[in-house]
Amino acid sequence: MRRRGLLGVGLGVGGLALGAGGTVAVDRALSPHEPDRLIPFHGAHQGGVETPLQAHGVFTAHDLRDGVDLAAATRLMRLVSDDAARLCRAEPAVNDQEPELARTPSRLTVTVGFGPGWFERLGLQDRVPTGFADLPSYEIDQLQRRWSGGDLLLQVCGDDALVVSHAVRQLSKTVRAFTTPRWVQRGFSTPMSTPDSPTPRNLMGQIDGTVNPRSGTDDFATVVWADRDAGVDWFAGGTMLVLRRIAMLMETWDELDPHGQELAVGRRIATGAPLTGQQEHDQPDLNATDHSGLPVIPKFSHIARAAHTDRGDRFLRRSYNYDEGVAEDGTADLGLLFAAYQANLTRQYLPVQGRLAQQDLLNEWTVPIGSAVFALPPGCGPDGFLGEGLLR
Amino acid sequence: MRRRGLLGVGLGVGGLALGAGGTVAVDRALSPHEPDRLIPFHGAHQGGVETPLQAHGVFTAHDLRDGVDLAAATRLMRLVSDDAARLCRAEPAVNDQEPELARTPSRLTVTVGFGPGWFERLGLQDRVPTGFADLPSYEIDQLQRRWSGGDLLLQVCGDDALVVSHAVRQLSKTVRAFTTPRWVQRGFSTPMSTPDSPTPRNLMGQIDGTVNPRSGTDDFATVVWADRDAGVDWFAGGTMLVLRRIAMLMETWDELDPHGQELAVGRRIATGAPLTGQQEHDQPDLNATDHSGLPVIPKFSHIARAAHTDRGDRFLRRSYNYDEGVAEDGTADLGLLFAAYQANLTRQYLPVQGRLAQQDLLNEWTVPIGSAVFALPPGCGPDGFLGEGLLR
Repeated sequence: MRRRGLLGVGLGVGGLALGAGGTVAVDRALSPHEPDRLIPFHGAHQGGVETPLQAHGVFTAHDLRDGVDLAAATRLMRLVSDDAARLCRAEPAVNDQEPELARTPSRLTVTVGFGPGWFERLGLQDRVPTGFADLPSYEIDQLQRRWSGGDLLLQVCGDDALVVSHAVRQLSKTVRAFTTPRWVQRGFSTPMSTPDSPTPRNLMGQIDGTVNPRSGTDDFATVVWADRDAGVDWFAGGTMLVLRRIAMLMETWDELDPHGQELAVGRRIATGAPLTGQQEHDQPDLNATDHSGLPVIPKFSHIARAAHTDRGDRFLRRSYNYDEGVAEDGTADLGLLFAAYQANLTRQYLPVQGRLAQQDLLNEWTVPIGSAVFALPPGCGPDGFLGEGLLR
Repeated sequence: MRRRGLLGVGLGVGGLALGAGGTVAVDRALSPHEPDRLIPFHGAHQGGVETPLQAHGVFTAHDLRDGVDLAAATRLMRLVSDDAARLCRAEPAVNDQEPELARTPSRLTVTVGFGPGWFERLGLQDRVPTGFADLPSYEIDQLQRRWSGGDLLLQVCGDDALVVSHAVRQLSKTVRAFTTPRWVQRGFSTPMSTPDSPTPRNLMGQIDGTVNPRSGTDDFATVVWADRDAGVDWFAGGTMLVLRRIAMLMETWDELDPHGQELAVGRRIATGAPLTGQQEHDQPDLNATDHSGLPVIPKFSHIARAAHTDRGDRFLRRSYNYDEGVAEDGTADLGLLFAAYQANLTRQYLPVQGRLAQQDLLNEWTVPIGSAVFALPPGCGPDGFLGEGLLR
């Protein structure tokens, strides 16, 4: 493949379709950083999902220690919920020795999830929500254990890296008596403080997340939040996270010219518009052909393969970039912490992942190196705790 | 040591001196993130030194490849200066395949420095500025090669992590034909967009940088910028950087009560005020004693040991926090990228470092694990390049 193979797929067309796309000015009006802004911790749903993307996201996974039973897991979740609630309202955690680092919340959110091992180790196999299961293996995967799996997820997001770092450490201390650390994945993005903020870009330069359901709509609720159909009552109001660590092969991606990059994606890089449209949110016309009868959006482009085939196979993308610097050979160690949230993983996520794993031009320049799934329980009230419906 | 030893040093006193310090409210009015704000690349001095601290700082070190001679080093610096100037004015680098990531500068700065090996390998030993040399070994050091040394420094700072990441990658590509990567150190802080912004905190919770010379003053220029006294004309307008990676032993630090922490530092944690004062910028009274005749600020506290003994041993602190997550044992892998800038390293930095290495209560909870020094040449004009006075 590389450039030659790609061009074989659709260049005659795409090349004509692109025109002046590369010179369109990008106008990103970013919102100011608001250090005092709180995101409520308590509520029907956990924060950090419908919350507009913050500047920093840290995902940490932990494995339950041997001997942690239901009673201990309940204590653990009470402690985590209490500390998370404090931190999110800009108060120090219990036993917080650096209380000043909690005083500027900057849209801090703490989100908790349970991996498959949580249910197994606690003997809760019969309470696993419908549609929640590990992903199958894909041929494109080159998964590393150090970025995969985990019994308990803590997702901490916020606009101030110092505040996020402090919250992660306090929560890591809280869970340590019950769990061992499995991995930490740290990401960043350009913050969105409202649902109308511009869609952020990833490190390949692409606008990423255009087709997301819009926060606050019924559509969002249908796509993201589980209802009684989950098969287990406790999960109503929860959601399921698929977190994939996707390395970007920037060396070879950079060998592609901008037209080649746009054909691989199916969108213009400068504006995010589909190759058949003018604006980011224009609906792609996957059937459009040029004067030679070739598709304008290549059939194996990312958006053609990812496009949902019905209302059921959609999800919320809420991804962060990662950048761990320069590897020994001088190449970049960076990519995407791809985070997909949906009410039912098996029904909504798997069909799309299956199509992309089978055929997606972007697979040439991306390699999944980590993978984990978590069931995120619904939110809780001030007198409750996360997971109370499951553990009680 | 630990808590007991510390208390032996000065608790009778300090305990009384602290009072309500822990409950003082912290009022941090942060400035908004300004995506369009440019910091000029060209000028008498390089950016990223007098520039108010940005939210993100990445330091990368590179070693010259064998065979790189003066002519090649000159080409290298022309290319780096050209790309840096473009990125800082929100234009893509030459050969930039993700040009959109350069469009929101967010106070991006690129700062270049030369390590001792740069001068040696290029046969420029007789042009080393007076006062520039590697640090001696200190007993407190546990230096690791992977965080130490380097022939060429690229320091990239800005308020948008995505923009910083992109700039680092573009510049790393630019230098790769001439150098091999040595290390990358990534840090963050709460941004200061003006010299009057509140002094940021480090991960121990301390306000860090109170005694800095104030940007824009003659004092700043005297402390930071080299003049003709540097012994080599080309270095006038430059400065010298000491970068120390200092691991914080948060587990044991957290075992200290807040009073113990304040005695170790010599300042109140909540306000940054010296134990003899009320406000952050109050002058510490190192001779003050309590009614028992014991010093209010312990003699081995950090500020007592670091306090300058004359005008000559001062420098600019412009440090970033680092946080690499949780180590295998569950403890935190975090600390400070301590960055000190001064006109003359030997004269200004060494006396302070010598006193601190000899005796500083904070040494109990901090371990230097990396160390590097760089001579940062003066700025250049639009037709020139960084290091032109040295290389021409």
